[in-house]
Amino acid sequence: LTSETVRQAGTAAALLGEGDVVDLVERLPPARAALLFRVLPKDRALAVFESLDAGHQADLISALREADVIDFFEQMDPDDRVSLLDELPAVVADRLLSGLEAGERTLTGVVLGYPRGSIGRRMSPELVSVPRAATVEQALANVRAHVLDAETIYTIPVVDHGRLLVGVVGLRRLLASDPQTPIEDVMRPVESAVVTEDAERAARRFLDRKLLGMPIVDHEDRLVGIVTVDDALVIVEEADSEDAARQGGTEALRRPYLSTAVTRLVRTRIVWLLVLAVSAILTVQVLEIFEATLDQVVVLALFIPLLTGTGGNTGNQAATTVTRALALGDVTSRDIGRVLFREVRVGALLGLVLGSLGFLIAGVVYDLQIGIVIGLTLLAVCTMAAVVGGAMPIIAQTLRADPAVFSNPFISTFCDATGLVIYFLIARAVLGL
Amino acid sequence: LTSETVRQAGTAAALLGEGDVVDLVERLPPARAALLFRVLPKDRALAVFESLDAGHQADLISALREADVIDFFEQMDPDDRVSLLDELPAVVADRLLSGLEAGERTLTGVVLGYPRGSIGRRMSPELVSVPRAATVEQALANVRAHVLDAETIYTIPVVDHGRLLVGVVGLRRLLASDPQTPIEDVMRPVESAVVTEDAERAARRFLDRKLLGMPIVDHEDRLVGIVTVDDALVIVEEADSEDAARQGGTEALRRPYLSTAVTRLVRTRIVWLLVLAVSAILTVQVLEIFEATLDQVVVLALFIPLLTGTGGNTGNQAATTVTRALALGDVTSRDIGRVLFREVRVGALLGLVLGSLGFLIAGVVYDLQIGIVIGLTLLAVCTMAAVVGGAMPIIAQTLRADPAVFSNPFISTFCDATGLVIYFLIARAVLGL
Repeated sequence: LTSETVRQAGTAAALLGEGDVVDLVERLPPARAALLFRVLPKDRALAVFESLDAGHQADLISALREADVIDFFEQMDPDDRVSLLDELPAVVADRLLSGLEAGERTLTGVVLGYPRGSIGRRMSPELVSVPRAATVEQALANVRAHVLDAETIYTIPVVDHGRLLVGVVGLRRLLASDPQTPIEDVMRPVESAVVTEDAERAARRFLDRKLLGMPIVDHEDRLVGIVTVDDALVIVEEADSEDAARQGGTEALRRPYLSTAVTRLVRTRIVWLLVLAVSAILTVQVLEIFEATLDQVVVLALFIPLLTGTGGNTGNQAATTVTRALALGDVTSRDIGRVLFREVRVGALLGLVLGSLGFLIAGVVYDLQIGIVIGLTLLAVCTMAAVVGGAMPIIAQTLRADPAVFSNPFISTFCDATGLVIYFLIARAVLGL
Repeated sequence: LTSETVRQAGTAAALLGEGDVVDLVERLPPARAALLFRVLPKDRALAVFESLDAGHQADLISALREADVIDFFEQMDPDDRVSLLDELPAVVADRLLSGLEAGERTLTGVVLGYPRGSIGRRMSPELVSVPRAATVEQALANVRAHVLDAETIYTIPVVDHGRLLVGVVGLRRLLASDPQTPIEDVMRPVESAVVTEDAERAARRFLDRKLLGMPIVDHEDRLVGIVTVDDALVIVEEADSEDAARQGGTEALRRPYLSTAVTRLVRTRIVWLLVLAVSAILTVQVLEIFEATLDQVVVLALFIPLLTGTGGNTGNQAATTVTRALALGDVTSRDIGRVLFREVRVGALLGLVLGSLGFLIAGVVYDLQIGIVIGLTLLAVCTMAAVVGGAMPIIAQTLRADPAVFSNPFISTFCDATGLVIYFLIARAVLGL
């Protein structure tokens, strides 16, 4: 790499927007991304580093120059600093922490003190609040005093004696009010979260309410920090990545797809694939029980993938709909009875349509008896699958279990085995075997 | 309903937070939700109505009193008003629009003029901007003048002659700067969207950059509106609901699950279920071709659900991972070669593990030849499925096709048919049939 190339890269980077540089860094291998950092002006380099997620930051740390690392780390917000520390090897994390100036180390320590996965771990302790007894004018002076160091100045928590949280006021409301108005007259009821609350739950509630900032309190309702909308977005994105992966029966990647090693990709998938394959041995055993029937009427084998596939699809449709309704809060676990009653009817109606079609086609192409078997099986399988698919997400939520246990592939596998039993019982009865 | 009950409901509602009332209204049937509205104080009722999504608002309109409807409609922001109009029957929409005061009608008309699905349709034309030549002091005066009517005052677009967008400045930066500083010295490069850009794409870019407001420009780069983070959140939520539904092979519900009619639920699912069932007839035909082989060695039928299931699972894992990588921008359609090369290796490794296990188990339980067939088939099916699952989301994106076309159930069905062909070809070769 010549100094000429470096100079050219610097010119190119200067022409790009900050977001574009972030995108570029995320796609480059760490060593080359670190080179790009060296040609960026100091303040731009910091802005780009701060915009990266903690995983990328951790990857970069070893490739960056020690001086840059210490500098970046010193400039970060306490909550972002903690996210990065969580990604680093303990030795590196300790070295960075001990290099911090005392005040910053204390702030970081506050956030580090809360359990992993809690909202306290993701909040910023640097905030501007205003006493209940103040006026709008005093509040605005307070905002100006903290304009550079507070995590946000757009949502201002209102506190009583002992930092007791009693309300919240937006900067916009302050600017629109007469300077002498008491804060009590302009504050509104507050939506807050307790430090130990699950970060994902608190962040979803926060985004649901369309707020810009959510104060965080301890168990005595005392203000300890604030979470901003961008923090909440990152938390929800991480959770969505995990949920999406688990619905597909795999683990979420912690690095971009193209820079994840093939063996790492295999590891994210092999466990669930093995679990599912072992569960699928159930289908082999079910078929073994009915091997004699199958031997007598080989034509029954032809419909196995069609019937199990339709069952799996119906189950997944129901599971997808109910999972989404649970996520949106439209359905809670207390509604399980109502959900099942709906899914029985939906499944039966779907089964009626598909079953009639199956009866007609199989009846014409093969014979009437096969038509009856296929028609009845589709009716029964669709009803069973809709109920199973609708029930599983609610059961998972009730058991506070990992949704991965009831992923789409799992529902398919379960419906496959059950569907085969239904199929052969109906076939035996109708064909008189 | 006695006046006593109404009074009690009013007292109960007064004790609830705004978010709780919104949750309650979303779960109640429209007629009862309308009763709840009557007992709320006017300003609270308006706040709750504004927090509902457009679908719920439309449901409520017919149950609310005419006077309330006109009042709510008059108070709404132009962009929210357009979302509501889109949900209403044309007659009702026209009546509401013609009842608006002239200025508000013009603002609404601006938003209504952009195509459905464009970001212009979701922006607010009410904004506060500042000329490039102004000072920080003048900019702050401008903010104060529009503090009540602008959609946001936290992100302030900077414009040149002819409303040409040249930058953006945050209110925080203004408050932190010396009043006499020229705006040019404090503004930063702007992330904007063109009015006709797809709303989902613009909103995702916006949230990805962690901004509070994104200016919207026309094709000549002139400022015409602004989108705030809460608008962007609603747009992305709607899109996520649709994507999640389609990945599960169903259509998104437009109302909460429990208040959606059973026949409506059936309609969201039946089309895809029929398409998939008809595609699955392919599997019946494949098996018919190999019926003679099946008749000779019935034991081959026992492994059909296991093999097709494993293929479907492997395909879905790959599709889930690649779909997520595309959504995060880690992978673009140009990367298709790299993705396929990775998935061939991942699939082959997964197939090697599962195939070895399958060979051992089937070899011990049945015989060596069956073991070889199962082992080789698992190896081939996993490799094929990973490649197909990885390729489909990229192909869909390249064709700008609806992702529904390549939903998880579709990938399963495709892998089922292909897997069966592979299975019987290997069986014939190994067993010498």
